Amino acid sequence: MRAPKSFRLHIGIFGKRNAGKSSILNALTHQDVSIVSEVAGTTTDPVEKPMELLPLGPVLFIDTAGIDDVGALGEKRIAKTLAVFDRTDLGVIVSNYNDWGNYEQKLMEELKDRAIPFVIVFNKIDIFEENILINEQLNANKIKFVQTSVLKETGLLDLRQLLLTSAPADYINRPSILADLVGAGEAAILVVPIDKEAPKGRLILPQVQSIRDLLDNDSFCMVVKERELREALSRFNKPPKLVITDSQAFLKVAADTPPQIPLTSFSILFARYQGDLSELVRGAMTIDHLKSGDKVLIAEACSHHPIGEDIGTVKIPRWLTQYVGGKLQIDSTRGHDFPPNLAEYKLIIHCGACMWNRREMLSRIMKARQAGVPITNYGLTIAYSLGIFERALQPFPAALEVYKNSN
Amino acid sequence: MRAPKSFRLHIGIFGKRNAGKSSILNALTHQDVSIVSEVAGTTTDPVEKPMELLPLGPVLFIDTAGIDDVGALGEKRIAKTLAVFDRTDLGVIVSNYNDWGNYEQKLMEELKDRAIPFVIVFNKIDIFEENILINEQLNANKIKFVQTSVLKETGLLDLRQLLLTSAPADYINRPSILADLVGAGEAAILVVPIDKEAPKGRLILPQVQSIRDLLDNDSFCMVVKERELREALSRFNKPPKLVITDSQAFLKVAADTPPQIPLTSFSILFARYQGDLSELVRGAMTIDHLKSGDKVLIAEACSHHPIGEDIGTVKIPRWLTQYVGGKLQIDSTRGHDFPPNLAEYKLIIHCGACMWNRREMLSRIMKARQAGVPITNYGLTIAYSLGIFERALQPFPAALEVYKNSN
Repeated sequence: MRAPKSFRLHIGIFGKRNAGKSSILNALTHQDVSIVSEVAGTTTDPVEKPMELLPLGPVLFIDTAGIDDVGALGEKRIAKTLAVFDRTDLGVIVSNYNDWGNYEQKLMEELKDRAIPFVIVFNKIDIFEENILINEQLNANKIKFVQTSVLKETGLLDLRQLLLTSAPADYINRPSILADLVGAGEAAILVVPIDKEAPKGRLILPQVQSIRDLLDNDSFCMVVKERELREALSRFNKPPKLVITDSQAFLKVAADTPPQIPLTSFSILFARYQGDLSELVRGAMTIDHLKSGDKVLIAEACSHHPIGEDIGTVKIPRWLTQYVGGKLQIDSTRGHDFPPNLAEYKLIIHCGACMWNRREMLSRIMKARQAGVPITNYGLTIAYSLGIFERALQPFPAALEVYKNSN
Repeated sequence: MRAPKSFRLHIGIFGKRNAGKSSILNALTHQDVSIVSEVAGTTTDPVEKPMELLPLGPVLFIDTAGIDDVGALGEKRIAKTLAVFDRTDLGVIVSNYNDWGNYEQKLMEELKDRAIPFVIVFNKIDIFEENILINEQLNANKIKFVQTSVLKETGLLDLRQLLLTSAPADYINRPSILADLVGAGEAAILVVPIDKEAPKGRLILPQVQSIRDLLDNDSFCMVVKERELREALSRFNKPPKLVITDSQAFLKVAADTPPQIPLTSFSILFARYQGDLSELVRGAMTIDHLKSGDKVLIAEACSHHPIGEDIGTVKIPRWLTQYVGGKLQIDSTRGHDFPPNLAEYKLIIHCGACMWNRREMLSRIMKARQAGVPITNYGLTIAYSLGIFERALQPFPAALEVYKNSN
C-alpha cells in the first residue's frame, strides 16, 4: 500500500552544486530496497524521490540538484529553491568542511526563519578534514550535523539517526492505530483476557488506546474476554472488520474466529504503531538461528513496576532457552539507558514501549541496526513462540512478506 | 430488591445486660424507614435485624440481648456469644462510663484476637458523666468510641459515621458496577462521546471501570460514540441488556435507543457505585426549591487538574442560576477538606469522586445528612437539568421511587 504523498515526510536537500546532494540521496536509497519510484522531473525541476526510509517510514526526498544542474541563474533559481522550502518538513544542508560559507549560512537562516527543522551533512569527510571551529560554532547554536563519506560508506546510519531525531513529532507519531484497518461506521472486536496480572478496575494502555482510536475514527468495537468471544460474535448480524486479541489468547481466539474475519494481536498492532513492524518481525525470525551460548539482550522501557516484568524476566527467557535447547546468556536493561556494546548480542528483545513516544523506540531500532543486531519485541516473540505469525500478519502485507521470505 | 444475607455487613452488638444494646439498635432502626423485617428468635437466641442502614447500605444487626435476657448462665451463654463473634464483621460494644470494666475489656480482647474491627458506644451520656481517663486510655490504644443518649437523641449520627469509618473495606466498596444489570454472557452498549476535553488517546476512568467490570462479570460491551450508536445497534441481532451513556449525549442517545432497551447514564451508575444513589437523587430534586440568594456549595474531590473543572465552576453554576432565575451564592471547595459550616448551604453539589474510595464519598453524604443539607453530584445535576431522570432511573427501582415521590 503506497502512502499518499501528503502523509510522507518531505525532506528537502539543499546545498551548493557538487556538494554531493545527489550522491548522499543515492547512498541512502541504495541502502534501502523499498524505493517506490522515481518521479521524473524536467531538468530544471527538483527531483522527488518517494521512499520508505528506515526507520522513519514514508518520506519524500526533494533534491534541489535539478535546479542547480542546469545552471539556471539568479531569479529563476531562487524562485525554484523557495518553492522547495515551501513544502519542506525537514531540511538537509549538504556541504563539506572546505566549502562551508555564506551560501550555507543563508540556507540556515531561511530554514530558521521558516521554523523548519534541519540538519547539516559534512560530506566527503574522507577528502576534507574536520574543522573544529565550524563544529564549535554549530554546537554553540545547537545545530545538529553529521560527517559522511559516500565513498567510504561512513556516517550514513548516523544521518538516518539524525533525520529521525530531527523530524517533526507529527511525522514520527503515527496518526492512528487502526484507521487503515477498520473504516468509519465499521466494527472491530477487542479480545481482552482478564488475568491475575491485570490491575483491578483497569485495562492496559494499548487496549484503552485502541478503543479510543476506533472512536476517534468513527468506528466502534466490542470488548470481550476470550471465553465469551464466540457468544459475542454470534450477536453480530454482519461480521466485524477485524478481531484484535491479546497474544496470550491467540490460539483460542483463532479457533473461535471464522477464517474470513481478519485477526491480529495487540502486540503486532503496537509493534507497528510504536515501532517498525517489518523490522521487528525480521528480528523475531532470527530466533531460529540462536545457538546455545549466544548473548541476548532483554530491554524494558519502564524502570519501575513494569507490567511486563515477569514476561521479560521469566517467561521469555524460559521459552527461549527451551526453544534453543541450550543455555543462553541473557542480559537485562531498563529505562532510557541502552548499553553501548550492542554488537555483542545476537538478538535484542524489547518491551512494547507503550509508555514511550515512537521516536525513542525507532531510535533504538536504529541503534540495533547500526550495530548489526536484529531486534524484536516481547509481543512478537510471544506471538512467534505460539506460531501465529502467518494469520496475525495477514492485515499487514509488507510484514507478512518479511515473514514469508524468512521461512 | 432484598440483598442476600451473605452480602450484608454483620454488625454484632455486645455489652452487659441493661447497657442499652436494644435501645441503641431501636434508635438506629427508628431513624431509618427501611427496616426489612425482624427475625423472631427464641428468647435465648440473639435477635437479628436486617436493615438498610444509611449510609452503609444493607446490614444485619445481631443483638446479643436475646442471650442475656433469659439470664442463661455460664457455658451456655458463653457459647452463644462466641457464635455471634464467629459471624461478626464489625463489633459494637455498648456500655456507659459508670459500668465500664472487666467485661468490656474481655469483649475488646476477644474482638482484637479475632481481628474484627469494633467501636465502643458510651450510652446514657445524659445520666453518666464522661470519664476522661477512660477516653485517654482508649485514645492511646487507638480505639474509637462515641457518646450517645437515646433519650436525648444525641450521638446517633456520630455512631453511624463511626460505623461507616470502621466497616471493612470489602463491605463499603461495592463488588461490582454492573453485575446486577448485565448478566454473564450478555451485552451492554457504552456510549462514549469524544469531546475536546477528553485527553488524547484515553478514556475517562468511569468508562474504563465499566468495561472492566463487564469483563470481570463475563459480560461484554460495544463501545461507540453517540453518532454511530444507531449503526452499532443495527449490528445486533438481539438487543443489548443495557445502554449506558455519558449524560451530555443523553437526549440523542435516548432518541436512538428503542424504548424497550433500558438506558441509563454513567453518572447515575457511579452515583450508586461511589455513593448512595437514592440520597443523591433526593438531593437533586431539591434544586426545584432553590431560591434567589440561597447558598450552594460545589465540592470537587481532585485538588489538581480535575477533569470536571469547567463543569463545576462554569456549567453547573450557569445552569443553576438560569434555572432558579436569580443570583445564587455559590461557594467552591476542593480536595479532602470539607467546610465545617455545611448547615449554611441549601444544597451541596459534589463531583463524582471517581478518584476516591466509596467510604470517603459516603462519609461526605453522612456529614451533609448530619447538617441537614441535601447533597447531589455533578452528573445527577446535569441529568436532572436535561430532564432524563424518569428514563435513566428505570433500572434502579428504589431511586426511581424517590424521584416519583418528590414529584
